[in-house]
Amino acid sequence: MSATQNEFSLIERFFSNTGQSRFPVKLSQGDDAAIVDVPSGKQLVMSVDTLISGVHFPEQTSAADIAHKSLAVNLSDLAAMGATPAWFLLSITLPKFDEAWLSEFSTSLKTISNHYQTELIGGDTCRGPLSITIQITGLVNKNNYLDRKSAKLGDLIIVSGTLGNAALGLAHLQQKITLPNDLIEPCIKALNRPLPRLELTEFLTRFANAAIDLSDGLVGDLRHILDQSQKGALIRRDALPVNDWIRSHQAYDFALSGGDDFELCFTVPAKDKNEIDHWNQHNPQCLLTAIGEVTESGYQLISNDQTEDLSHWQGYQHFE
Amino acid sequence: MSATQNEFSLIERFFSNTGQSRFPVKLSQGDDAAIVDVPSGKQLVMSVDTLISGVHFPEQTSAADIAHKSLAVNLSDLAAMGATPAWFLLSITLPKFDEAWLSEFSTSLKTISNHYQTELIGGDTCRGPLSITIQITGLVNKNNYLDRKSAKLGDLIIVSGTLGNAALGLAHLQQKITLPNDLIEPCIKALNRPLPRLELTEFLTRFANAAIDLSDGLVGDLRHILDQSQKGALIRRDALPVNDWIRSHQAYDFALSGGDDFELCFTVPAKDKNEIDHWNQHNPQCLLTAIGEVTESGYQLISNDQTEDLSHWQGYQHFE
Repeated sequence: MSATQNEFSLIERFFSNTGQSRFPVKLSQGDDAAIVDVPSGKQLVMSVDTLISGVHFPEQTSAADIAHKSLAVNLSDLAAMGATPAWFLLSITLPKFDEAWLSEFSTSLKTISNHYQTELIGGDTCRGPLSITIQITGLVNKNNYLDRKSAKLGDLIIVSGTLGNAALGLAHLQQKITLPNDLIEPCIKALNRPLPRLELTEFLTRFANAAIDLSDGLVGDLRHILDQSQKGALIRRDALPVNDWIRSHQAYDFALSGGDDFELCFTVPAKDKNEIDHWNQHNPQCLLTAIGEVTESGYQLISNDQTEDLSHWQGYQHFE
Repeated sequence: MSATQNEFSLIERFFSNTGQSRFPVKLSQGDDAAIVDVPSGKQLVMSVDTLISGVHFPEQTSAADIAHKSLAVNLSDLAAMGATPAWFLLSITLPKFDEAWLSEFSTSLKTISNHYQTELIGGDTCRGPLSITIQITGLVNKNNYLDRKSAKLGDLIIVSGTLGNAALGLAHLQQKITLPNDLIEPCIKALNRPLPRLELTEFLTRFANAAIDLSDGLVGDLRHILDQSQKGALIRRDALPVNDWIRSHQAYDFALSGGDDFELCFTVPAKDKNEIDHWNQHNPQCLLTAIGEVTESGYQLISNDQTEDLSHWQGYQHFE
């Protein structure tokens, strides 16, 4: 937090009182570092994500959408671990001091940080090409977290929500496809305003063996679980929770390798299938869908009685 | 940590086993988030700093120097709080995949993180203009930390080490000045390889009332202490710990407003002056110098029997 006088007043003005944590903050923004208390019996869950203009969001994205997404993708990492958000730090690089942009950005950041009860406790501001780095810290009860390495043979593979909408929204903005009118708004919203699935935290810590958030596309992200668990998987294409446009256009690639859904993918013992049904009856806003099973080895997609090998499938690559 | 397959292997390859913390790490790099344990009786001390090529270091700076400085400036924030380093997260944005550069960067990062016993537990990698963001977490015994708001009337104002060398090194590289041969290497080293003053942690928590690290220049940084403590200060120019070149050229601005020294500036009750002397007898590598006193109000520099008002002095500004 080596802020100059200018940066300092800038940070103070726009970012003070951003969010409020469930957990105590002893010393917040405005010193060399922030001081926080950790309740006993908790472990820290720490993640960092950088969003760069033109890479992680289209350059024309609004300041409000950028702020939402920057925090949402970090909250999504906590959701995948079964953690409860506590505090975050923000490092923002701006091409110029733009009061209107900063005002819109900070208002949106306050809305989402308040909603998820996470608090901005410090940061850094620099001049340069637009990018936002957020480091977030959540808490779990000791050793009661999800990881990627504990999927078990026979587990059901579950995803939350709808897959592919964010990628459809991006393709529509890039004029690569033309969506029907009724899908434009929900798909662009899926791209710009992803919802971290923190509502699943209790369910995951009770029933799931392994979990990941879907940032780079289902096939690539699920592969991390499989690699680390030393298992395989079989996915049924027709079971994927996709919208009618994807189904009617057979455009399943948007769901399989399109990034930015920020839904959760996790594995649950088959014996707990009824818990999935029970969840779905009570949580229509966050439906869970079984899309396949964990197998001994291999990585296969079944579609129209054909089997496709997903072992060398390439998801979205930032370095291409 | 929404890393693609490519980024993921990149991170794993270069950044695994970087540093080792004194404090337990339950789950390190390679998941959506890292999991760490916090010993009881400790508080977290959290900071984030971004370094951008061409802003925070000259573009020709070596990968090894960039790695060192990126972590050192964060460690320096912890030093100013009286904290002990524990873990850090790294978000690195690179213009291209450059194996030689990454190898040099990661080797240097391992050296400094091992030296200061802090451990890399997660990160993010993106393509874009070169910048490095590190979020660091340290620990203090509960409420036994330094802040900027507790300077007391009559406190001695102390700085560690030598001031102005980093700014001299930068000015020399920019061919704004020509340093004598014997000063080139130490001044460029001060710029590229700042030493976080963590050796002062115990001393500070015992004797200091307020502290800050000198990242943007003495006058501006000390002003943060004065503003937050609602006090003034009187500084004696001739007491500033500067090298002979600055003294003989009367080029005190390098010490007063030159940034990047990453020495500590702190205030100590006058009654503890003998503790400063005692420290200096045993720590010649980190000499402490009293440069003035905390006063009721005002901000003045005394030089050659003249008094200069520092209230509106401008330090180095990133946004100019």
